[in-house]
Amino acid sequence: MIEHLMETLISSQNVFDGRMIRLCVDTVRLPDGKETTREVVKHPGAVAIIAETEAGGLLLVTQYRYPVRLVSLELPAGKLDRDESLESAAFRELLEETGYRAQQLTKVMDFYSTPGFSDEIMHLYIARGLTFDKMQPDEDEFIDCREYTRDEVTALVRAGQIKDAKTLIGVYHWLYGDI
Amino acid sequence: MIEHLMETLISSQNVFDGRMIRLCVDTVRLPDGKETTREVVKHPGAVAIIAETEAGGLLLVTQYRYPVRLVSLELPAGKLDRDESLESAAFRELLEETGYRAQQLTKVMDFYSTPGFSDEIMHLYIARGLTFDKMQPDEDEFIDCREYTRDEVTALVRAGQIKDAKTLIGVYHWLYGDI
Repeated sequence: MIEHLMETLISSQNVFDGRMIRLCVDTVRLPDGKETTREVVKHPGAVAIIAETEAGGLLLVTQYRYPVRLVSLELPAGKLDRDESLESAAFRELLEETGYRAQQLTKVMDFYSTPGFSDEIMHLYIARGLTFDKMQPDEDEFIDCREYTRDEVTALVRAGQIKDAKTLIGVYHWLYGDI
Repeated sequence: MIEHLMETLISSQNVFDGRMIRLCVDTVRLPDGKETTREVVKHPGAVAIIAETEAGGLLLVTQYRYPVRLVSLELPAGKLDRDESLESAAFRELLEETGYRAQQLTKVMDFYSTPGFSDEIMHLYIARGLTFDKMQPDEDEFIDCREYTRDEVTALVRAGQIKDAKTLIGVYHWLYGDI
């Protein structure tokens, strides 16, 4: 049923091996038998957390996103460490970026950030039962964290102040629940 | 107010120049004065279209996404051509991928797909007043298009069959309107 859409690998060339990403250029066979190349940014995958406080607010972090030259308001999130479970990563990133420990983590869904050129998968969790400990950002991370009410989050989206795809998905889910 | 979060460019190295993306590794100064590197995937930007038919359905396209090895159900979308306006790109991509011409295109919002490592910006439009002409996919694009009812779209999201971030945002907007 879907075979007429599929592409198959002929050869792969590793172009770059970095701290966060790798880049491959693969030669593939198209459904019509022709060849083309596909540029693929390899990413270890990531977690993002809808962190709801006891008061019913949402924790969002502010950080400078160098690629877009923007101070961005986002869900706490981060990439998976090697051999780390998804839940451990979600617990760890929440603690590092917000200072809060979660008693309960529930998977909401997962999705691909930009499947046209990257394999990055984002695992979205909702965290509840939060207790504050202290922020523990990575050495090259500079992050502010604050709690926002539903009205504040709504106003921020309407004002175009939330520009990050995973955060828009998380906010929609937080405000409206499961589709 | 945000200066304590900002990073400034020291030097930029162009690592790869491809058909769809470029890759730079920039050395930057962190807020604390230290240096680090940032890997940045440069992308021309893209448009995605919430295409609502006269019958009140949503047009979604099915295509193989090689980076994630998945036949993916998505909003019609595509990257900007050089010197093309956003509206022209939205009109063109809708026609190419679905075969429909739009009488009315309205900007919904824009967002960054994955601002941690790429500058890709996605401009989301809603298209109405659709009339069918014929599909005109690019030479290396193999795409199916179909119309889905609200109930079908809802069921697809619940079943985890929609895995693409921009499409989830578009579907939330289509089902629930502006936040």
